[in-house]
This record gives sequence, C-alpha cells and structure tokens, in this order.
Amino acid sequence: MFNFDEKAFLERHKGALKIRNDVEKAVDAEYKRGFKNVFLIGVGGSTTSHMEWEPFLKAHSTIDFRMERAAEFVLCGNKRFSKDSLVFLSSVTGDTPEVINAAEYVRKQGAKIIAFTAKEDGPMAKLADYPIINTHGNTYFWHAVLLRLLHLNNEFPEYDKFFKELDGLPETLVDVQKAADEKARDFAKKYCDEPIHYFIGAGNMWGWTFCYAMCILEEMFWMRTKSVHASDFFHGTLEIIDRDTSVVLFKGEDESRPLADRVENFVPRICAKFTVFDTKDYALKGISPEFRGYISPLVMESVCERITVHLEDALKHPKQIRRYYRRLDY
Amino acid sequence: MFNFDEKAFLERHKGALKIRNDVEKAVDAEYKRGFKNVFLIGVGGSTTSHMEWEPFLKAHSTIDFRMERAAEFVLCGNKRFSKDSLVFLSSVTGDTPEVINAAEYVRKQGAKIIAFTAKEDGPMAKLADYPIINTHGNTYFWHAVLLRLLHLNNEFPEYDKFFKELDGLPETLVDVQKAADEKARDFAKKYCDEPIHYFIGAGNMWGWTFCYAMCILEEMFWMRTKSVHASDFFHGTLEIIDRDTSVVLFKGEDESRPLADRVENFVPRICAKFTVFDTKDYALKGISPEFRGYISPLVMESVCERITVHLEDALKHPKQIRRYYRRLDY
Repeated sequence: MFNFDEKAFLERHKGALKIRNDVEKAVDAEYKRGFKNVFLIGVGGSTTSHMEWEPFLKAHSTIDFRMERAAEFVLCGNKRFSKDSLVFLSSVTGDTPEVINAAEYVRKQGAKIIAFTAKEDGPMAKLADYPIINTHGNTYFWHAVLLRLLHLNNEFPEYDKFFKELDGLPETLVDVQKAADEKARDFAKKYCDEPIHYFIGAGNMWGWTFCYAMCILEEMFWMRTKSVHASDFFHGTLEIIDRDTSVVLFKGEDESRPLADRVENFVPRICAKFTVFDTKDYALKGISPEFRGYISPLVMESVCERITVHLEDALKHPKQIRRYYRRLDY
Repeated sequence: MFNFDEKAFLERHKGALKIRNDVEKAVDAEYKRGFKNVFLIGVGGSTTSHMEWEPFLKAHSTIDFRMERAAEFVLCGNKRFSKDSLVFLSSVTGDTPEVINAAEYVRKQGAKIIAFTAKEDGPMAKLADYPIINTHGNTYFWHAVLLRLLHLNNEFPEYDKFFKELDGLPETLVDVQKAADEKARDFAKKYCDEPIHYFIGAGNMWGWTFCYAMCILEEMFWMRTKSVHASDFFHGTLEIIDRDTSVVLFKGEDESRPLADRVENFVPRICAKFTVFDTKDYALKGISPEFRGYISPLVMESVCERITVHLEDALKHPKQIRRYYRRLDY
C-alpha cells in the first residue's frame, strides 16, 4: 500500500496503548482522594478530543465534566473551578502556550493535573501532577482517563472487556486502512483541487470531523474547509450547497447516527459531489457490536490517514510545511 | 439612512423589552420551586444564543447550566437531566421540528419548560409551562431569563440597574446603526463578491459571530463563510489565510478581548482584506462602562443589521429567498 509502514504503525499504536497503566494509577489515586468536578482544558486539536467525548460523557455519567478553551478559561474564569477540581490536559509538543498558561493557573489554584505529553522534559510534564508520557498516545489517553473514571464511578462496567478488545485494535486498524485505501485515493485524486469542502458529522464523530477539517486539511494542506454539525447543517449551511460543492459526511455508529442518515438522504438531491465515509463499511475484527460505536472516531481517524497520504501526493504538498504556525510570533 | 425604518425599529425593540414581566414571573416561580440544573436546548440559531451566554454564566454562576443540541439531546440522552431540571427553549416560528421534539421529550420526563416563541397558537407555546410570547424578543429573552436566575441566586446584584439601562437601549442602538452605516456599506460594496469570508470572535461575541456567518450570510445570502473562534484560529485556520482572503473580526468588550487583540495584531501582517468591527467604536449613551461588555453582542447585532441591509442591495439578493429551507422535505 502506498506510503504505509505497517510495522511502524503497529509499533506506534501498541506502544501508545501501554499508557493505560500510568493512567490507571493516576485516575485511581485522584478518584480515591475525591473531587468536585472534572475540567478538560485544551486548545485547537485537544478541544476536538473533548468534543468527541462530550456526548458519551453526557449520556453515561453524572460526574460534573466541564470543557474549556484554555485561553478563555484563564481570561474569563469559571466559578465552579477550585482546588477541588480535577484537570485533564494534553499538549503533545509539551509547550503549547495556551495550555501551559492554563496549567500554571490551575496549579496556582491548587487543583491536580493529569496531562498527556510526548515530551518527557517539556513544561507540560513538569507542571502535571501525573504526566502521562508517550510519543503517540494522545487519542488513547482520552479513552483511558475518561473510561477509567466512569468505571470507578460504576458507570462503565464493560471496562475490562472493552480494553481487552482495544488491545487488539492496532491490527484491526491496519485492516481498516487497507480496506479504505482505494476509496481514500479516489477521493483525494478527484477532489484535491476543490475550492472548498464541507465536512459534516454528529455525536462522537463531530470532534474528529472538526479536527480533520481544521488540524489536517487547513493546517497541513491549506485546503479550505468548513466543518458543520449534522444538526446545524439544516439551519443555515445547507443553503450554499449546490451541485458543484464538495460535501463529505463522516458517519459513525453511536446513537447520533440518525442525524447523519438525514444528511445522507438529503444532500444527493442537491449535490453531485457528495462523499460518505462510514465506519460501518469496515469489519473491525475482534470488536464486539456494542463497542463499535464507542470507537467510531478511532476508525475514522484511520480512514482519514489514508486520505491524508493520498492528498499529500495529489497536491504535491508535504504535510510538514507551515506558513505561519510556529514560524512567526503572534 | 438607506432602508431603515427608525420608528418600526424602536417599536420592535421597546415591545420586545416588555417580555421581562412574564419572564420574571416564570423564573421566580421556578426558582422558588427549586431545580437541580438548567438545560438550554436549541438548534441552529438558538444554540448560538447559548454559545453567547456560556462564558458569562461560567464566570458568574454556580448554577449547573447545560447546553444541548435538541436533536442530539433526544437521541443520545443526558444522565443529569431529570424531572428536576429546568428547561429553556426558543423557537421563533413555534414549530422548529428539533425543538418541538425536544419539548415533547422534556414534558414526558416531567421537567418544566420556559420557552420563547413569536407564535401564540403554535406548538411551542402549547408545550411550554411558561410560554413567553413576543414577535421580536428572542435576544432579550436570554438576557431576561438568565440574568433573573443569577439575580435570584445572588450572583447578579446589578440586576435592577442593568435592566433600567437596557430600557433605554433601543434609542442607543439606533445611534449605533447610524454610526455604523458608512463602514457597513463600504464593507458590503467592497467584499460582497468574495469567494469566502472568515469570521472570528471570542468570549460572549463567539455566539453572534457563528450566528451571523451561518444564519444570515450562508442562509440568507448564500455567501461562503467560516466562523472561527479567536483561540482556535491560531491552531489550524490561520494557515489558509493569505493576502487576498477576506477576514472579519468581531470585537466585543468582555474579558476575552485580549484573544481578539491577538488576532487583530497578527492578521494584517499576512492579509490585505482584513476588517474589524469593534463595539468600542460606539458611544452607547446611557450604558455604564461596567455593562458595555455584557451587551457587546447586542451592539454587534445592530452593526450587522446595517451590513445586512447593504449586502442585500449590493448582491441584489432579497434576504427572504431560500433554496431549500422549509421548501423541501428532509
């Protein structure tokens, strides 16, 4: 398969899954100590992880979770935040300014921090009470911390079964990438030069939809995108879709699926450039039917890795290039 | 001033402000009865009102507010929702399907509903325990219900002073429109044919930024827009801005203003089509300095009314036209 290092992929994912031990120690200790509420604070990509988990947490937990944009949190404050809050942060590079500022603010208030970072000696690792360090485990970090918390709170009894299945996921995601490759290549070749793409998602797929449009296509490929929640779509954005507008729907398998069905039923009536990527199209060996919805975003991320590889080739635009990000001061 | 009926504008706004009596009766009764949490449930435009209020509520209140997309709420559920929740809804037309479904779901659970609608005999009015009926008061509805609640909870002691000043706002907003007209006209004439506009906002201005881009420019004028939070902007979207991209910043006066300053400092270095609309540019007669930030979105809405009037003329596109919305079934 074009530009795919299966061995390296498996190593990355298997290595990333290993963060669970450290996460369990941290979460168990803080659950035992007790907290009033849990703050997920991030910026850019890390807030899209929060968006991904929000519907699941709402549906399954009575824990008082609060999502915050780091810079706004520091400037505007949150009256429910206190030393009795538990804070989850993530900064892969370890020095994202907004997140580091928030971490310093949190420490001053005396709240505890469990944080993911790839940089062992970066500011993030130093500011966290429990630094969770791994080069590639960001996605699994959120699974591990949030589901552990729900498990301890008697809100996720499937914990052991779920994570046993997750341990086999790296191989399954290789299968997904192989199965998705042709469709991903066709999409990239056909649509790489479109003036704009509309990306639509709902439920636990909304965070990844937003992330792929912003953190990959805008940031890495300088492609114009707008991400739209499947529910908002019918209250404004639909009006500017016409025959020649590229619209992409990311379908997952959680309870929000009827919202994506509605988009899928409507868009082809007015648009001839409509593409649906659906996690249901992939076998997911080793994953029980009841867990498929939980990991839909992980599956779609794998599908998108193939889109990204083929876009990079079709656009002749290496994905490492940045015009401004971390090149200019602002 | 072009296409402006001052008398009708004043009548609308003064009429809308009158909803406060009904709102106070409803909120006072429910506060006395007691509730565990407060759900703001909406779709499209009404969720942007929730977005507008979220930073203020976070900063000022310990009441457990929860924002929900109506369709997702019904499909995915929320474990914190119960008969002891208090629900705020809004459907101007009175029959928005997603909101009506949510209202029926809420009633079945036995929670109370305070709802804004313009339609006295529509489904929304029938489903609400406290229907708040007014042809144009949607924006003031949110001020009234939320600040009344905070006032009763001893979290907004400025209540009487603030609303006394708000009673004089209609005339002040006329002044804003007159002061903003020339800039709005210039913007509309210069940029009406741009292939896409990026709208940026933060804090309590983010909801209106999102709303104007989606509910007015996309829905009414079929203009391509993307709204970006000033904090997310630096984590992806900035990469596709170049000299010839239209970027519009909506600046308000709440605590998030430094986030907008950061955008204002950066964008002109890379972009020659940058427009800033700033509520600070308007006198706001009768409004105390400490309240200016609270009403920034209301002021910007008035500025945008002038942009809308001039876009309608420049595009020769009456704003009542819809291609699909409420014309096709979906």
